[in-house]
Amino acid sequence: MTIADRWLLPDGMDEILPPQATRMEELRRTLLDLYDRWGYDLVMPPPVEFLDSLLTGTGTDLDLQTFKLTDQLTGRMMGASADVTPQVARMDAHSLKRQGPVRLCYCTTVLRAQADKHQGGRSPMQVGVELFGHAGLEADIEVLRLALSSLEAAGAGEVHLALSHIAIYRALTQAAACDDEVERALFDAIERKAFNRVDALVAAHVNDPALARMLGELPRLHGGAEVLEAARDALAEAPAAVGEALAQLVRLHRGVAAEHPEVSIYFDLAELRGYQYHTGMVFAAYVPGYGQALAKGGRYDDTGRAFGRARPATGFSMDLKQLATLAEREPPVNGIWAPDDDSAALTETINHLRAQGERVIQALPGQHTGPGAHRCDRQLAFEAGEWRIAPLR
Amino acid sequence: MTIADRWLLPDGMDEILPPQATRMEELRRTLLDLYDRWGYDLVMPPPVEFLDSLLTGTGTDLDLQTFKLTDQLTGRMMGASADVTPQVARMDAHSLKRQGPVRLCYCTTVLRAQADKHQGGRSPMQVGVELFGHAGLEADIEVLRLALSSLEAAGAGEVHLALSHIAIYRALTQAAACDDEVERALFDAIERKAFNRVDALVAAHVNDPALARMLGELPRLHGGAEVLEAARDALAEAPAAVGEALAQLVRLHRGVAAEHPEVSIYFDLAELRGYQYHTGMVFAAYVPGYGQALAKGGRYDDTGRAFGRARPATGFSMDLKQLATLAEREPPVNGIWAPDDDSAALTETINHLRAQGERVIQALPGQHTGPGAHRCDRQLAFEAGEWRIAPLR
Repeated sequence: MTIADRWLLPDGMDEILPPQATRMEELRRTLLDLYDRWGYDLVMPPPVEFLDSLLTGTGTDLDLQTFKLTDQLTGRMMGASADVTPQVARMDAHSLKRQGPVRLCYCTTVLRAQADKHQGGRSPMQVGVELFGHAGLEADIEVLRLALSSLEAAGAGEVHLALSHIAIYRALTQAAACDDEVERALFDAIERKAFNRVDALVAAHVNDPALARMLGELPRLHGGAEVLEAARDALAEAPAAVGEALAQLVRLHRGVAAEHPEVSIYFDLAELRGYQYHTGMVFAAYVPGYGQALAKGGRYDDTGRAFGRARPATGFSMDLKQLATLAEREPPVNGIWAPDDDSAALTETINHLRAQGERVIQALPGQHTGPGAHRCDRQLAFEAGEWRIAPLR
Repeated sequence: MTIADRWLLPDGMDEILPPQATRMEELRRTLLDLYDRWGYDLVMPPPVEFLDSLLTGTGTDLDLQTFKLTDQLTGRMMGASADVTPQVARMDAHSLKRQGPVRLCYCTTVLRAQADKHQGGRSPMQVGVELFGHAGLEADIEVLRLALSSLEAAGAGEVHLALSHIAIYRALTQAAACDDEVERALFDAIERKAFNRVDALVAAHVNDPALARMLGELPRLHGGAEVLEAARDALAEAPAAVGEALAQLVRLHRGVAAEHPEVSIYFDLAELRGYQYHTGMVFAAYVPGYGQALAKGGRYDDTGRAFGRARPATGFSMDLKQLATLAEREPPVNGIWAPDDDSAALTETINHLRAQGERVIQALPGQHTGPGAHRCDRQLAFEAGEWRIAPLR
């Protein structure tokens, strides 16, 4: 073990140095203040939970992403949180037990055992909101607007919003009643927009000609708001749930476009991200220059069931580490340099300035500074019998 | 696995609900702002590192406290951070590589495999500062003052500061040149203030009568500032390092008492906490009603050596979860309730109020509130053709 080896950090486990850490702290405050102003209460989920409660009803993806730990006190398996959303759902269902809508927000570091191919790090700082206890589209619209306001507050300029609704694919495949193996193949082909493969699977396994045609159309239904018109015609013979989902997308589009006319909105009815746990609308917000979505969310109405209290839920999350790269604000150079002198008069002056909110750095014996160094632009100098602020030369 | 079982959290892995989470966030900001005003730059250490770099030179205590994880990418062992201090020392020594004094602060959740008998949780939120690159007592005085200012900012009333200096015991035992086994026994007896045991060990194993007498005196040298006077006499024949350490304690006492006359200062020359890594002054700050110290710190000049750059270092840390219990501030009831209405005029009014910093909660269909609920004291009402703020009845 050489000294150089000891310096390496595991892939995706970042250390954050000044001034980037200060930038992230500022953005953390900006976002949590925004959520507070919208009525979302802060919660802090535990960094580690028993595996049973952490992974109940969340599917295998999260299981593979979760670091496993043995609890020395009980011998039971624990997991480090890899996704805050199911934890917050448990807090709503079990710990808070409030009636009616509950608005919660969080900002916490999570750990991922594997690097997601779409996301850089294995230690993202997950920030987001969850709105529990309301099944109406008004809740989804609020969450969507808050996601877009978050990106705006983080300094995103051009934002592209991709909207979809899980119930469309779900209603069509349920009606087609394919066996599990065929459905998995179909899911994979539709998600990849592998048109020929979708057509072949549908021709071989879906007997109802209208359903077959509609499933074949699905991966082709993507684009601007005109896609919703086209889908209404193309999916006219679908089960009622499809029509309801399309009507919801029309209302969502209207609700978001009215508040955020600058955001370009894109629909992709074959977008199946989070199919295992989402139940309604799903969305992802993109910013040019970033390969992956900066905000992702949607409705997931069943998560609390494993904890004895199924509640409607909708929300979104983001990675603060990514967001902080949107605007490279430099921390201000506005500090005051104080000399190495332990006189009571100087100490009193420093205390007074700090109490007023000034940043005052007192030199240690032998420590020097210059203009711009230590983020100082002024200094304390003894003039005419008192300590005064002077420019730093 | 019943539903009730899924609700249990591992011992010491807490979830933090509203309003406690909001209180902690406020305190986090108060402390990080305080450190910024004193010139300490924020860093965020990685939550997981390779075990070699995490535990180098830190001793077995930290090893036992560290959760071990296998890195699926490399097969190497990693550990979840159980103490931020050695991580920040690595960041100073390797990542920043600045010349001269470097002031850093942090606030991050750490994980402990075992519950410390002196500390409640296994997931403390460690907050503190480190000052690298300056060996002078001025740095220690600054750190001590900042620790006391932190407790004051957190709302501590009466504070008791215990001060000691590791070099006193170290110089005496080095001069006595006992073998390892005797030294371990002596260390244990002195730390427990087991006078008879200390006397017996010294009589049997320390040949030099002056050294024997001084080691026997050590556990008896505790109390107010008069202890320093007594120690100067009692340890007059000790190696020079002892006299220097006592002189440092006198200066520390003076430097702290001048700024914080309200703090009662206590000396215990047999206090050996952190003996494995501390090299100079050590301190602990207590508040009545709390069994354990709320702030702990001291000088540890050798930590960076394992990373190729030994630097002087002094600092302290606290658990934000404990600190937040010092003052039970209730979050303000000052929000505005808005009705369920998606008119453009209401949305515009809400946006305007939020931009001014107001907390505005818009009702979802079917959601109601009352005075004090949802932390609202006002509501928006449509009067005389416009949306106006009215008292919440």
